[in-house]
Amino acid sequence: MLTMQDALIALTKYWTDRGCMIVQPFNTEVGAGTLNPATILRVLGPEPWRVAYVEPSVRPDDARYGENPNRLQTHTQFQVVLKPDPGNPQELFLESLTALGVDIHAHDVRFVEDNWANPATGSWGLGWEVWLDGLEITQFTYFQQAGGMTLDPVSVEITYGIERIMMALQGVSHFKDISYAPGISYGEAFGQAEYEMSRYYLDDADVESQKRLFEEYANEARRLLDLRLPVPAHIQVLRCSHTFNVLDARGAVSTTERAKAFARMRTLAREVAQLWAERRTELEHPLGTAELPPAAPAPTSFPVATGTRQLTFEIGTEEMPPSEVTKTAAAVKTALTEKLGATRLGHGDVTVYATPRRVVAFVAAVQAGEPDAEKVNRGPKKVAAYDADGNVTKAAAGFARGQGVDPSELHILDADGVEYVAVTKPDPGRGAAEVLSGVLSEIVAGLRSDKNMRWNDAKLSFTRPVRWLVALLGDEIVPVSVSSLAAGRTTRVHRTAAQPKVEIASAEGYLDLLRIHSIEADPAKRRQQIIETSERLAAEVTGSIDFAAESALLDQIVNLVEEPTPILGNFSADYLDLPAEILTTVMRKHQRYLPVRGADGKLLPHFVAVANGSVNEATVRNGNEGVLRARYEDAAFFWRADLETPLADMKAELDKLAFEEKLGSMAARAGRIGRIALALAPVAGVSDDDLVTLTRAAELAKFDLGSQMVVELTSLAGTMAREYARRAGETEAVAQALFDMELPRSAGDPVPSTTPGALLALADRFDLLAGLFGIGAKPTGSSDPFALRRAAGGVVAILREHPELRAITLSAGLQAAAAEIGAQGIDVPASSLEEVVEFTIRRYEQQLIDRGDDHLQVAAVLPLATAPVVADETLASLQKLVGSADFAQLVAVLQRVRRIVPEGTAASYDAAKLTEPAEVALHEAVEKVGQAPTALGDFVPAASVLVDPVTTFFEEILVMAEDPEVKAARLGLLATIGAQAAPVLDWQALGTSLTPSE
Amino acid sequence: MLTMQDALIALTKYWTDRGCMIVQPFNTEVGAGTLNPATILRVLGPEPWRVAYVEPSVRPDDARYGENPNRLQTHTQFQVVLKPDPGNPQELFLESLTALGVDIHAHDVRFVEDNWANPATGSWGLGWEVWLDGLEITQFTYFQQAGGMTLDPVSVEITYGIERIMMALQGVSHFKDISYAPGISYGEAFGQAEYEMSRYYLDDADVESQKRLFEEYANEARRLLDLRLPVPAHIQVLRCSHTFNVLDARGAVSTTERAKAFARMRTLAREVAQLWAERRTELEHPLGTAELPPAAPAPTSFPVATGTRQLTFEIGTEEMPPSEVTKTAAAVKTALTEKLGATRLGHGDVTVYATPRRVVAFVAAVQAGEPDAEKVNRGPKKVAAYDADGNVTKAAAGFARGQGVDPSELHILDADGVEYVAVTKPDPGRGAAEVLSGVLSEIVAGLRSDKNMRWNDAKLSFTRPVRWLVALLGDEIVPVSVSSLAAGRTTRVHRTAAQPKVEIASAEGYLDLLRIHSIEADPAKRRQQIIETSERLAAEVTGSIDFAAESALLDQIVNLVEEPTPILGNFSADYLDLPAEILTTVMRKHQRYLPVRGADGKLLPHFVAVANGSVNEATVRNGNEGVLRARYEDAAFFWRADLETPLADMKAELDKLAFEEKLGSMAARAGRIGRIALALAPVAGVSDDDLVTLTRAAELAKFDLGSQMVVELTSLAGTMAREYARRAGETEAVAQALFDMELPRSAGDPVPSTTPGALLALADRFDLLAGLFGIGAKPTGSSDPFALRRAAGGVVAILREHPELRAITLSAGLQAAAAEIGAQGIDVPASSLEEVVEFTIRRYEQQLIDRGDDHLQVAAVLPLATAPVVADETLASLQKLVGSADFAQLVAVLQRVRRIVPEGTAASYDAAKLTEPAEVALHEAVEKVGQAPTALGDFVPAASVLVDPVTTFFEEILVMAEDPEVKAARLGLLATIGAQAAPVLDWQALGTSLTPSE
Repeated sequence: MLTMQDALIALTKYWTDRGCMIVQPFNTEVGAGTLNPATILRVLGPEPWRVAYVEPSVRPDDARYGENPNRLQTHTQFQVVLKPDPGNPQELFLESLTALGVDIHAHDVRFVEDNWANPATGSWGLGWEVWLDGLEITQFTYFQQAGGMTLDPVSVEITYGIERIMMALQGVSHFKDISYAPGISYGEAFGQAEYEMSRYYLDDADVESQKRLFEEYANEARRLLDLRLPVPAHIQVLRCSHTFNVLDARGAVSTTERAKAFARMRTLAREVAQLWAERRTELEHPLGTAELPPAAPAPTSFPVATGTRQLTFEIGTEEMPPSEVTKTAAAVKTALTEKLGATRLGHGDVTVYATPRRVVAFVAAVQAGEPDAEKVNRGPKKVAAYDADGNVTKAAAGFARGQGVDPSELHILDADGVEYVAVTKPDPGRGAAEVLSGVLSEIVAGLRSDKNMRWNDAKLSFTRPVRWLVALLGDEIVPVSVSSLAAGRTTRVHRTAAQPKVEIASAEGYLDLLRIHSIEADPAKRRQQIIETSERLAAEVTGSIDFAAESALLDQIVNLVEEPTPILGNFSADYLDLPAEILTTVMRKHQRYLPVRGADGKLLPHFVAVANGSVNEATVRNGNEGVLRARYEDAAFFWRADLETPLADMKAELDKLAFEEKLGSMAARAGRIGRIALALAPVAGVSDDDLVTLTRAAELAKFDLGSQMVVELTSLAGTMAREYARRAGETEAVAQALFDMELPRSAGDPVPSTTPGALLALADRFDLLAGLFGIGAKPTGSSDPFALRRAAGGVVAILREHPELRAITLSAGLQAAAAEIGAQGIDVPASSLEEVVEFTIRRYEQQLIDRGDDHLQVAAVLPLATAPVVADETLASLQKLVGSADFAQLVAVLQRVRRIVPEGTAASYDAAKLTEPAEVALHEAVEKVGQAPTALGDFVPAASVLVDPVTTFFEEILVMAEDPEVKAARLGLLATIGAQAAPVLDWQALGTSLTPSE
Repeated sequence: MLTMQDALIALTKYWTDRGCMIVQPFNTEVGAGTLNPATILRVLGPEPWRVAYVEPSVRPDDARYGENPNRLQTHTQFQVVLKPDPGNPQELFLESLTALGVDIHAHDVRFVEDNWANPATGSWGLGWEVWLDGLEITQFTYFQQAGGMTLDPVSVEITYGIERIMMALQGVSHFKDISYAPGISYGEAFGQAEYEMSRYYLDDADVESQKRLFEEYANEARRLLDLRLPVPAHIQVLRCSHTFNVLDARGAVSTTERAKAFARMRTLAREVAQLWAERRTELEHPLGTAELPPAAPAPTSFPVATGTRQLTFEIGTEEMPPSEVTKTAAAVKTALTEKLGATRLGHGDVTVYATPRRVVAFVAAVQAGEPDAEKVNRGPKKVAAYDADGNVTKAAAGFARGQGVDPSELHILDADGVEYVAVTKPDPGRGAAEVLSGVLSEIVAGLRSDKNMRWNDAKLSFTRPVRWLVALLGDEIVPVSVSSLAAGRTTRVHRTAAQPKVEIASAEGYLDLLRIHSIEADPAKRRQQIIETSERLAAEVTGSIDFAAESALLDQIVNLVEEPTPILGNFSADYLDLPAEILTTVMRKHQRYLPVRGADGKLLPHFVAVANGSVNEATVRNGNEGVLRARYEDAAFFWRADLETPLADMKAELDKLAFEEKLGSMAARAGRIGRIALALAPVAGVSDDDLVTLTRAAELAKFDLGSQMVVELTSLAGTMAREYARRAGETEAVAQALFDMELPRSAGDPVPSTTPGALLALADRFDLLAGLFGIGAKPTGSSDPFALRRAAGGVVAILREHPELRAITLSAGLQAAAAEIGAQGIDVPASSLEEVVEFTIRRYEQQLIDRGDDHLQVAAVLPLATAPVVADETLASLQKLVGSADFAQLVAVLQRVRRIVPEGTAASYDAAKLTEPAEVALHEAVEKVGQAPTALGDFVPAASVLVDPVTTFFEEILVMAEDPEVKAARLGLLATIGAQAAPVLDWQALGTSLTPSE
């Protein structure tokens, strides 16, 4: 049995053998090994640095008196920093697991996207959490920025969670049972401290004293920065941070205090980083400058192809985020197609597959080379090229000289009717390899993702490091060099393979070769494999999987593995007592497990995990089951704890949850939401019953954000509200309203099913939109941290589905929200509200376009979309009317009226001035239409009486009469028609699409 | 090259392989690994505990900006705790050095007495500093008490000083040059932090903030104790301690603050310890109870000796303090002699030798057994034993029954003239082995030293652990069992020997066997070896060693080694520029090196170190030279720094030096000393020149205690004062007075050579005595922490050598001191001063007795000793007069007068009442003597006129006349004679020793 201290010693040895220096844990409390100056300061600047150390990481908020099996106020991290990125950090990491005695062939070790950011210190990085049979055992990050400074070179940060690893390796289910050292358990060694420090952090630390300490530390940090002493300043910042964490664990931080404290710590941390970097520069970087791999030499010669062959181009990466796998494949396909299209190289179909570790492009039937061609270079105009005598002018002679030809070789070129002199030169076709070399190198250099990173390459930037390239045209390597990478014929298969690197003989054999090594490059095939095997496994327990419902999850899984290996796991049926949403949320979000259901659709105590590659199924099953058990145990703990907590107490927790610095806490926001909903209720004229429900639900709004369950599993907000409300004896209507108010969670999600719920959901989103636009935090193209697009889409979706709320226009809702926000002293300018309306209407427009509606019809109803249900109805009417000749006539008539009436013409006239019969007839028809209904379906029949009189009017009457009064009356008459039609539709936007007669 | 991190890893592996658990350094600053709860709390209580860890130990006061080669604000300890003592911790430790790659056969590894105490936490232990070629590399302690609680079982604490070890192993002379990890030096890894933290601790920490922090931490500790949370409370105490250290390094702690802070921390630390122990008891000692070795079985049979053989009895110990080696040998000899004397076992001479690791007693010619004897048991008196008829009474019958004999066997015993009945029984002699078994076991159990400790033995207690016993009578083992020890024939030789344990065939062969293994048990022989070899080595560099001057050092060295191996080392002649006292102090006190001098007595740049055992001389020389170089470099640094510091600045440092809590700082004490000296000057009537000198010297008094040199090398106080004063341009007289005032440093040391120096030295000691007696801190039999005996001895020595100060009596001096102390608000009671006078006179008496003076004569002059010079002169006169018949007559006369005059008789008479001629003659003689001189030499001739008249008076006159007036006049006459003689001598104490005529 490997004890925990054996593990620490093994890791220490492993990493020192690989050139890491060992330092000691820091001697003031840190929340993570990252904050030890050996990481957070040393990653700055150009100096190389390789370090490994143990870091007992103190997180007061995780204190549980030693009772929770997985949570400790102090847990043990083993931290490794490799600067610069050595190029193979994942492989080094896997070897370290072997050094720990982990059989990486038996276990399912995976790199699952996890990006790290610590806004408090202006630090972030991209990487993964490493899974061991579903258990997160390590954080693996390419550190991109620290203290607000871009890191160059990038460091690799590997943070092992030692307790978790030990629990998995030792097969124990409580941290106290870890064998820490021979004959002594973790609980025996540290149990008393765990209990007492929990007591201190959760119950007994003196709040006022901690507040004073925070001030002392922060002031001292400030002084030390001014004295240019970054190391002692950093210690003070760490103390601030720990003190803040203690206060937080004691529940003693108000929103204002939190915001202020964070701002202060952020500023200090950034200044520390900058000062450290400056000082190292002043000290002339005592450790020297890290070196990155040199650029690969540019190709100097290209193999000559002789026939038509396939191109296989593989871009080998470290595990890409699932969403990027698909996107990158598409992007590469587009780029390759376009770039090849810009050459003369003949080729067949372009196909691109991707897995987490590779993007592979296949181009069929690539010709041996481009055909030869000619290139015409245009010179001066003919008239300037020859003088009257037909002699070559100076200009033409100069051109010829420049082109390296004799003037006699110039010929005439007619371009759009103008004659020029020109030279025609042969343009010999390049060989396929040369053409492809350039194209492929551009494709690699052009790789981009939603969030890009740097690694040990001087120039490339992508979602994760690109580590190798394969480019084969038939049997030959296409020489491709991009930054430090050069393409070859060596691909990589599973890292656990006996030979992780494999030579590829020919482009055509690539896919089969990968399959020999059990890797399926085609995502569709992987998907199919997962579905088939999972179905079979589920059937073994008389269950099935609802793949339609799990489609998004399936998309992810497909892109998390190269060799899908579904494994059926089980959990105790006892957990089925928990609400199903909890169970499925844990399975999907945390573990990417497929839930197994019985014939009645209810959950069975089984799941399918999809491992990568050939593993020991029993081992992996066992590991995954353990992880799920721990998570369900946690959830059950929260569930029971929450059930013992009055709703009001949970709600009171919202005081501690920050929402936005200026807009106050989540409690403030929940209060506003309730009041906004209640303000809107009379606008919509809701029933008394609904008002009762709404009033109570408004009081409780968002209380479940204060529950332990939702703190842990945020996506269960609403779901838990409903569960807890029911169990606390609230009416089903109130419970449902609380559930409803979180809907829709995303585009396509159901909207609230009840009116009170819809009102709360609307109020929620109006508050969010008005508030954030109001303080100038509207989303940009790349950044929408508060998910305002989703909120606006939600508003639209709700209003569209709740016609009973048609009176609540976007403006009305936003104004109600603005009033509440204003009551908190934040003035939301009217212009901001207009922006939100416009922004929201854009979402509506998008919904319609996405649904496939005609864009002109959509544009026609958009002015009505401040009440989307009205716009919807209008559009529906419009779509019914389309094709009707009468409607077409009406539209034509109205368009004609609109075109002739100058902008700004008043919709009134002196009927006495209208004397011609056609005038009078039209006047009478207009009178008849009168205050026409604005709904299109009603307006059209009502307005049909106008068609003939208008037509006659235009035939017989000269609108622009000489008598100005007559002219005014005629224009006024037409303007009145326009005014009658205007509220119904944007007739102009509708354009002429419906009026073929014109 | 073993890097520092290799070393840490090697130690970790070594100790985990021996059952130690690894913990992490503590995550708040600690001054030493001891304060990590893994030591300071875990040593408490009965639970076993084995732990090892690295502890970066923070000592703000040691901050030197990274400039000093040997001193850092954070140094690295490797800490090991073994609880209980495993029985062989030294051997384990030595193996760990081997694990570090130290060739312990080549190097000189020694265990040199060093006792550890941390009064602030009520903690102490006994042990050693471990020397590697003269360099202290490890602290090795048997932890006896922590938090004021006696430890049971005792823990072994081993604290490696990693930087020092690495500097030695790597042969570098600055910590920054240590190779920390491959390719990275210590300076590169930690240099910037060392500099910045030095800046913080020495210059930039905000003093007021630190003071507030201290309060916060102390208050929080208090609260947490009340909440019964020892672990978080301990952290707060550590923070107090660190904060205090920061304040101290910033020079911001006044004496009052220091005393208060210490008291607070002490109380808190003790309560933490007690609470921890209580909590562990409440938790029922989760780790169980440590087991100690069982008691050795008591001997059940004894070998039968057949002839006269030698007894060899060896008590094997771990390295005893040098002073205990000699004392223990003497004590064992006395005990053995006495105990054997109480038996009937015939034997020859008793000889006892000792080395640091063994005490060996040899008893020559031990008989095979005790002779048989008879034992008489006394019963009732004869008169009670037989009735009138001669029949046995009940009482006698009962006695006989009790003795197990028939009443007829009773016989009569005459005891001091009283007859009893008695029984005589045979008392068969025991065999030698049985006799010796008991005696030797008692001797081991009775071993005691000045300071005793416990180890893994349930009952024994001694200066250091007793680990083995050898008891051989001739060829046979004498069965001796004491607690867990049983004697055998296995001794131990050098720990580095191929076979460290050796069997001894016979008692007689013991010494030779040891010599075969290069161990010399006889201290005299070791001494001779050292002298001879050292002389030869010194001669090689044309030097010699002043063994007379180095006698005390030599005594120590003899008891530090079992196989003396003197090695000549060299140091750079550059250091000879430093005052010689510095160089020799470092050599003697710190390193136990013998200084080598040239023919002119001046130091040569050489020294002799005495290693233990056969080592690689070049290695050991090199190591010792390096240590000395580092120490001299340090000293030179202090020297230069001090020379740049004005004397006043050094003096100002005294504010920070605590003296005694009630009596204030060293600055307060120095101020008093100056004022006392100036107050006493007029009493002694010093010259104007001396007064000028004294006035200036008083201002500067003890300023050098504030110098860096004296802070480091306390014994140079005075020496440095003179050096620095000279160089600062003070007069030679002032410089000398400052030097003088520290004299005498010990009994036999020279006294001040100048009057101003003598006055200051007296004032110093009067202040010390009056102050400490005044506050009730007078010495007890076993404890004299302020060395008051030495101070009193110094007073006497100074006054005896400075007759010009004869007017300064003990009382006068002490009163002057008491006045100054009183001015500080501390009232010194008159009774205390009387106690001091008495205490001081006892020292004087001791000085005389030690000199060999007759104790009656000494007693006779003691009443004069409040002015010791007067007593001296009187004694000298007395010794001249002794043997003179005239003097004897005078003494006889005066004794006779003294005897007849009742106590309290007034020394006056009405001469008119004296009418008899003998009366009148005596009256006239008395008149003639008149106000006789009090000096004995003058008094005797003056008083000689009394001899005849007194004689006549007693022959002719009846003193007790019937007429009361006559009687009164006669008694008054005699009383007047007594009064004339009284100030001269204690004639009564002189007794009759001088008056053979009586």
